[in-house]
Amino acid sequence: MPDAVRHVYFLSDGTGITAETLGSTLLTQFPKSRFYRTTVPFISTVAKARSVVREIDQVALRGEAPLVFSTAVGEEIRNELATCNGVLVDLIGVHVQLLEEALHVKASHQPGQAHGLGNALRYQSRMMAVEYAMEHDDGQSLRALEKAEVILIAPSRCGKTPSTMYLALQHGVYAANFPLVDEDFGHDVLPEPLRPFQAKCFGLTSNPMRLSQVRTERRPGSDYASLRQCGIELRNAERLYVTHDIPHVNSASMSVEEISAVILERMGLRH
Amino acid sequence: MPDAVRHVYFLSDGTGITAETLGSTLLTQFPKSRFYRTTVPFISTVAKARSVVREIDQVALRGEAPLVFSTAVGEEIRNELATCNGVLVDLIGVHVQLLEEALHVKASHQPGQAHGLGNALRYQSRMMAVEYAMEHDDGQSLRALEKAEVILIAPSRCGKTPSTMYLALQHGVYAANFPLVDEDFGHDVLPEPLRPFQAKCFGLTSNPMRLSQVRTERRPGSDYASLRQCGIELRNAERLYVTHDIPHVNSASMSVEEISAVILERMGLRH
Repeated sequence: MPDAVRHVYFLSDGTGITAETLGSTLLTQFPKSRFYRTTVPFISTVAKARSVVREIDQVALRGEAPLVFSTAVGEEIRNELATCNGVLVDLIGVHVQLLEEALHVKASHQPGQAHGLGNALRYQSRMMAVEYAMEHDDGQSLRALEKAEVILIAPSRCGKTPSTMYLALQHGVYAANFPLVDEDFGHDVLPEPLRPFQAKCFGLTSNPMRLSQVRTERRPGSDYASLRQCGIELRNAERLYVTHDIPHVNSASMSVEEISAVILERMGLRH
Repeated sequence: MPDAVRHVYFLSDGTGITAETLGSTLLTQFPKSRFYRTTVPFISTVAKARSVVREIDQVALRGEAPLVFSTAVGEEIRNELATCNGVLVDLIGVHVQLLEEALHVKASHQPGQAHGLGNALRYQSRMMAVEYAMEHDDGQSLRALEKAEVILIAPSRCGKTPSTMYLALQHGVYAANFPLVDEDFGHDVLPEPLRPFQAKCFGLTSNPMRLSQVRTERRPGSDYASLRQCGIELRNAERLYVTHDIPHVNSASMSVEEISAVILERMGLRH
């Protein structure tokens, strides 16, 4: 029954983020299959592991064996999970020996600190980047733009805000953003607040149809959301990027993760 | 030379997020080793793969073989990467066969859409959650609190804002947050705006020392940042949580990823 919904478990002794991330990536290799996903984080005791195994075994009784992606590293917990009647995909264990050999040291087998505070300085700088991004969203504050590592510029609703947040939260990048409006176009110069920072600017564009759709959700029937107005703003924005040699990307069919990865790459911002 | 800095590459035909996430998780198993990390995303052509291989081989000439974590799925690109003089850790390939057998279908071997738009509805709801979180940060808007799935409450600087953002951006959870101030304490009732939504409230606490340290960065020498004031607010906040049976966690030594995972778990919010 390849068409039935298959139960999938993401198990972890930490937050579950790694198990979900790699597990989901693997599942995208099977685009026609349908999955029902459950994440169980913080499996820190054998008792909790046992209760998860019981749940998986119950599901297994009712259909095909669930897929079980695990990043648990503690030996007792791994042994317990290994008894389940699911298809166990051990995301960590399979690579540890290779790495031990390559690094000439033994693995710690300590439960995942992968998404803990880790390097305190790096963590703090991520949190400061989030704060900075909140304060500098949508051009609300033009103070301290010189602290920005990148300034996203674009017409309204091209994805500036979520991309800025993602860059800050995941990568600790100081990102500001600045909305381009009609008054910013048709001159030979960049909008005044951006002029000292041209080298930090990164532009977003979109497709008129897509932008009109997004704007319509916000203000249905408005001139702002009209295909005509969206087309004008996008053309003008693109002209501005080209004139001032500002790197840019069409975000219409990209996720914030993809937009951010492109920005990091093009602006040389990987820390 | 286990003490030398080891070069690590995260290679991907997509954003590189999965390679970085699992690769970094694996490296946390070797806490005493030091790593110099390079991410190369969007390896979409054999030519680009070849140029990465050349870089890795150059590094290999100067010291120990770099560790190379790859999530590339295209066969030609994988074959090219496999020729490098690094320790290749193929994060995808090793599990695909097991999953093919379990799912009774062949993997697509299409380059990673893991962090693309994916499910458009789900993606859109994440972006709407980010917008909601921005509008409802720090109690700035009490409109539409009924739309919140969770309302984080805490004294200033306990981690409400970045946790809210993380919940929205990564999990598409509608999260608002509300700062607890002196006036909110000492009554038998919750602050007025929260009263209709008690069941959605989740409290954060911290340690007085830690909170004082964080507040000092913002306003050095202020009463606001004093150990005494921090202690009072935290005691009062905790009393309020307990009195009103509001689930809460001490965020002092937790990352936003961990705080968010706890909130999802305790509030039953995994979508």
